Amino acid sequence: MKKQEKVSNAVIRRLPRYYRHLTELRDRGIVRISSKDLGKEMGLTASQIRQDLFCFGEFGQQGYGYKVENLREEIGEILGIHRGHTVVVLGAGNLGRALIENFKFSRNGFRLLAAFDINESVGHELFGVPVYHVNELEVFLKEHSVSVGLLTVPKSAAQEIADRLAESGVRGIWNFTNYELSVSNENVVVESVHFSDSLLTLSYLISQREIQEEQE
Amino acid sequence: MKKQEKVSNAVIRRLPRYYRHLTELRDRGIVRISSKDLGKEMGLTASQIRQDLFCFGEFGQQGYGYKVENLREEIGEILGIHRGHTVVVLGAGNLGRALIENFKFSRNGFRLLAAFDINESVGHELFGVPVYHVNELEVFLKEHSVSVGLLTVPKSAAQEIADRLAESGVRGIWNFTNYELSVSNENVVVESVHFSDSLLTLSYLISQREIQEEQE
Repeated sequence: MKKQEKVSNAVIRRLPRYYRHLTELRDRGIVRISSKDLGKEMGLTASQIRQDLFCFGEFGQQGYGYKVENLREEIGEILGIHRGHTVVVLGAGNLGRALIENFKFSRNGFRLLAAFDINESVGHELFGVPVYHVNELEVFLKEHSVSVGLLTVPKSAAQEIADRLAESGVRGIWNFTNYELSVSNENVVVESVHFSDSLLTLSYLISQREIQEEQE
Repeated sequence: MKKQEKVSNAVIRRLPRYYRHLTELRDRGIVRISSKDLGKEMGLTASQIRQDLFCFGEFGQQGYGYKVENLREEIGEILGIHRGHTVVVLGAGNLGRALIENFKFSRNGFRLLAAFDINESVGHELFGVPVYHVNELEVFLKEHSVSVGLLTVPKSAAQEIADRLAESGVRGIWNFTNYELSVSNENVVVESVHFSDSLLTLSYLISQREIQEEQE
């Protein structure tokens, strides 16, 4: 892992995909895989795979391929899976509930500690997770070490809640609000999920095919 | 738009981001922007911006910058925003409901026609959208032109529903099930949203900072 400093943003973005595909390969009982086959799984070329993984040290062996479980463990290590990260959910509406119910936080190395909202779900548990009023956020963050705030509040509340999270020492904000947060605290990383980017990519790919067919 | 054929996958992936940022700039009343300032908005270099946009024809003028509304319109056109695409939601659980309630389909050029489920919401409307039993899917798809099926069903049902969508002539599947669909019909494009890729990127970025601090 010595070479890690030079790793490009594009490679970093691919690491979670490696981890996901390697987990799946492992679950399918596959012990060893060549860069060619791993590339086929992931839609990358064998040489791209070799280049990417070379950034993090040499995991593969010529003519032998990669040990799936080893490589998965190493990449998990790089991604920080074993660092004991924790998360709280801000906003227990439909999206918040969907994530609390179905998202496998622990598989990604995160412990889900609590959710915060302003309405009827407060004081109850959602799928085993306690829901507190957002007024209690600062007290909770003082008493617990929280790595990430998952933001599913309405757009109008997004910036205020993000500021409060940042001021209370949270390290990252996982932003589902589709609002472009401006967080000036350089210790806080913001990662946004934009559903529309994904749908518009699909729209582009479909449109290209439609246009092709219309021309045939 | 003549040069479109050679466009790389990475540029395609950036197009929705351009569209999103340009929409925001327009909403902020900004009429013209330099590649430098647009780059700053998007976390790209000015030369990357110029290269990307050059792929689609020359929108900018030396020393003048880009007209925000024009560029936005052109990119929207390329993305297929005006092609009248339509979508149905498969699975009206928490995630399906969250998307039906909050996602701005029409802003991305999609008309949301209906949702399908197997349980209590069937026969009602969700935020103005009719919910049918999934048994009626094929009949509905015969009677309506549907471009995309949005998949939020449980993992165990994902492949079966995807097959049924593909057989009924849907052009794209927007997959939120975290299941790796195998769709052999080459006329059908699958675009998957993997929340874990995003959380693990955040985990990586936080971990890097933590490690740095520990070393200081």
